[in-house]
Amino acid sequence: MKKDSFAIGMSVYSEFIELVKDIHRLGALQGHLGWDQETIMPVKGAEVRGEILAWLAKERHLRITDSNLGELLTTLETKPDLDADQSANVREMRRVYDKSIKLPSEFVSNYAKARSEALLGWQKARGNSDFSSFEPHLQKLVDMTKQKIEYLGIKTTAYDVLLDEYEVGMTVADYDPLFAGLKEKLVPLLQKILHSQKLNPLPQLPKDLTFSISAQTEFCEKVSTNMGFDFEAGRMDASTHPFSAGLWPGDTRFTTRFDEKDPFSCLYAVMHETGHALYEQGLAGEFAFTPRGQAVSLGVHESQSRLWENQIGRTEAFWEVANPWFREFFPDSPQWDAKTMNKIANSVSTGFIRVEADEVTYNLHVMLRYEIEKKLFNGELTVKELPETWNNMFEEWFGNKVTSDSEGCLQDIHWSMAAFGYFPTYTLGNLYAAQLLEAMSIDLGDIDQIIAEGDWSSLLQWLRPRIHHQGSVMTPAQLIESATGHPPSPDAFIRYIESKYGELYSLSDN
Amino acid sequence: MKKDSFAIGMSVYSEFIELVKDIHRLGALQGHLGWDQETIMPVKGAEVRGEILAWLAKERHLRITDSNLGELLTTLETKPDLDADQSANVREMRRVYDKSIKLPSEFVSNYAKARSEALLGWQKARGNSDFSSFEPHLQKLVDMTKQKIEYLGIKTTAYDVLLDEYEVGMTVADYDPLFAGLKEKLVPLLQKILHSQKLNPLPQLPKDLTFSISAQTEFCEKVSTNMGFDFEAGRMDASTHPFSAGLWPGDTRFTTRFDEKDPFSCLYAVMHETGHALYEQGLAGEFAFTPRGQAVSLGVHESQSRLWENQIGRTEAFWEVANPWFREFFPDSPQWDAKTMNKIANSVSTGFIRVEADEVTYNLHVMLRYEIEKKLFNGELTVKELPETWNNMFEEWFGNKVTSDSEGCLQDIHWSMAAFGYFPTYTLGNLYAAQLLEAMSIDLGDIDQIIAEGDWSSLLQWLRPRIHHQGSVMTPAQLIESATGHPPSPDAFIRYIESKYGELYSLSDN
Repeated sequence: MKKDSFAIGMSVYSEFIELVKDIHRLGALQGHLGWDQETIMPVKGAEVRGEILAWLAKERHLRITDSNLGELLTTLETKPDLDADQSANVREMRRVYDKSIKLPSEFVSNYAKARSEALLGWQKARGNSDFSSFEPHLQKLVDMTKQKIEYLGIKTTAYDVLLDEYEVGMTVADYDPLFAGLKEKLVPLLQKILHSQKLNPLPQLPKDLTFSISAQTEFCEKVSTNMGFDFEAGRMDASTHPFSAGLWPGDTRFTTRFDEKDPFSCLYAVMHETGHALYEQGLAGEFAFTPRGQAVSLGVHESQSRLWENQIGRTEAFWEVANPWFREFFPDSPQWDAKTMNKIANSVSTGFIRVEADEVTYNLHVMLRYEIEKKLFNGELTVKELPETWNNMFEEWFGNKVTSDSEGCLQDIHWSMAAFGYFPTYTLGNLYAAQLLEAMSIDLGDIDQIIAEGDWSSLLQWLRPRIHHQGSVMTPAQLIESATGHPPSPDAFIRYIESKYGELYSLSDN
Repeated sequence: MKKDSFAIGMSVYSEFIELVKDIHRLGALQGHLGWDQETIMPVKGAEVRGEILAWLAKERHLRITDSNLGELLTTLETKPDLDADQSANVREMRRVYDKSIKLPSEFVSNYAKARSEALLGWQKARGNSDFSSFEPHLQKLVDMTKQKIEYLGIKTTAYDVLLDEYEVGMTVADYDPLFAGLKEKLVPLLQKILHSQKLNPLPQLPKDLTFSISAQTEFCEKVSTNMGFDFEAGRMDASTHPFSAGLWPGDTRFTTRFDEKDPFSCLYAVMHETGHALYEQGLAGEFAFTPRGQAVSLGVHESQSRLWENQIGRTEAFWEVANPWFREFFPDSPQWDAKTMNKIANSVSTGFIRVEADEVTYNLHVMLRYEIEKKLFNGELTVKELPETWNNMFEEWFGNKVTSDSEGCLQDIHWSMAAFGYFPTYTLGNLYAAQLLEAMSIDLGDIDQIIAEGDWSSLLQWLRPRIHHQGSVMTPAQLIESATGHPPSPDAFIRYIESKYGELYSLSDN
């Protein structure tokens, strides 16, 4: 890298940070173009967009693997006077550098291009519910990902290399017992709930009722604003798969999707994505474009979305506040009370779609993908066999026969982005969220009461210094322990889910 | 610049083109972020957006001034076997390189940042019609632009350095007599028309009528589609100041603005911007990210927008096709015939706003800005004096007293982007457009008849090979001569404007 005149006279750390910021600026541009691609890009822009994203990936990779960065890291690692923020940047960049120098730049560029192409292939295949048209894309991504695993080097299993990409330090040896323990609790709970629901069916929204997109938009913006999202520093748009993108300070964007027959779908997508977006808006702006100023992990990110979506949004207390708004925007809807609205919001089903799943089945959806990915990368499953395996496992676990790929193995965007190893972080998010809720209630008192009073700022203000402002100063596990007083564990989640659904369905009476 | 393995074994020209493409990719990213900034960016994203744009400008400048590019240019300039496309790329990059190496990279970055800040300052100042809040931004841009002129080196006058930036080779010595000649014809024509309009007032849209934004959007999309714009390869959005941005192949975006009281404002903004956008959509995709694949000049770009907006759009023939659509989308509007609609569309006024000006006064608006810029950079006017000078000149030329800066010197976006020297290219566009129309009618016959028949594809197909596909293979003057058989001149425009307005207002009878 040619050094320009800016660099002269800088301290080693400042020189290091300039390189780090360049890398993150390129990443932010990728994020921006990615947001645009999924929300508003004209369809014929796709091909060249893919090339530009591949070029950005190559440019970013060139800088991450710059030997100058390696030398600066080595120098900084011997300096005892770095503060905690500086040390975090060195620690995180070392991790990224050591991985990246193993990947050839041509591979990185081709991999990005293949992902862009696969994303379009997936959108089309999902629209037509036709796995066969997506299969060659997925095959290419799996092959290239296996190549990437080879480059990175296998210590334990091939799949562990991918798991570590999304939540540092987590392996099959961690997830297997965690998921087994959860499954052991969740499956009997699910059966009890399904039985109870059969005895006392929930009320249904009338089939002929339409919830206009404009009213859903206004209702959801009101909820998002009440959660604390700053619409002057962000946007809400629509996309096939809801997502959030913290582009840079002052510009955090999230998306939702609309179903004119079901306003709950949009509402909880918005609460979920707003949870992510609040984390992004709460990061420390003075550390922008460095790891210290970024979210620490996908698991922690997901804890923020799930906390707002479920622990806050799927409560009777929430509906005491939101029901008057709901009635205002949807005057033709049945006038149910908060208790009933909350029951509908918490209805449990063995439906096909993960993002619409309730809290009981959600982790089963994650585990299904985890088991499939493990087989795919540890050599027990081919891409061709994927739909059949998916459908068989789904029927076995949920008792429900998948008849269309778009409701089966094509439903999620992740594989089209080669995000293999990502799904388990969703479950980590659920566990962290439950743990944060317990800690929050020790500090703030009755959380339901705070929610019901309608001013939720104290909840956000509790999260800001403990999670958001911390960025990546600690590792995910350290952060959760620092915020809650306990190392990460599934116990709080089990307590939460058994208590919540026990009350909702009066299961103790059964 | 560190060379990566891709470069090994490349021919000199291929190596050159890779550098050229990198430069243009960075430029395209600037264009994309610029589009986003003016259409959909949340307001608090502005500060960091400015920093990112400045960083991109610096990165682009570093590559443009890379000594490796200079060496490759020198080598290629000795090669006799380059074809016309390759020669055009060498010619254009040489011009850019020679200029750019004169500008320090820190200056380029600061200049970009100042422009971003000024753009926001202008938006605010214009909203409040308060020049004083914009003045420090403008002062900074003028000072920095004077610094830039110093860096580039003055051969004739300081302002000539700026004029050359936007239309290569054009100077005050060219524009002064051109504008004087136009003014001599236009001022008496204007007086005759105003007199005729006074005797026979045009019908007015009822003041209590509202033209909904959704209907205007649909109507304008229909017109744009009929012109040949491919909405699968582009978008239409709203912004304060309409503009078009050819981001890259398959993704051309333009904007418009809406006035619920005046559907003509949006319509002609859309026809204007679609004219620009058709040029972008018609560029040769195989030369993307190189000069050969880009529009040759602002003057030629403006000829495309003005041709569609005025020579095609402001005709009775156009209204014979568009009037049924207009009645469909605005059923409450008075049911005037095509002749009357066209008269309204061609009404001449001494109004304040350039982008809403008719074809007679438009060039006077341009000349006013040209005279002010000339004074500003040749040392006869300070930034502080600008509003007063503007208002005095406007009253003298148009007989109309400016009472608000937002209708005066704050109306245009250009100065907030430091686009000094840009305005005269608008007049060049008008001259080129008239010349193209004459040549087109020799080849295709009666253009009005083609327009009235409703299928305008032969007009676009005439422009495609002669202008659009040519990109920058020739200089602007060569291109106009090659397309029309004559070197650029104001004669066709004078003939066009005198004939058109003579007929419209029966001026021969006076």
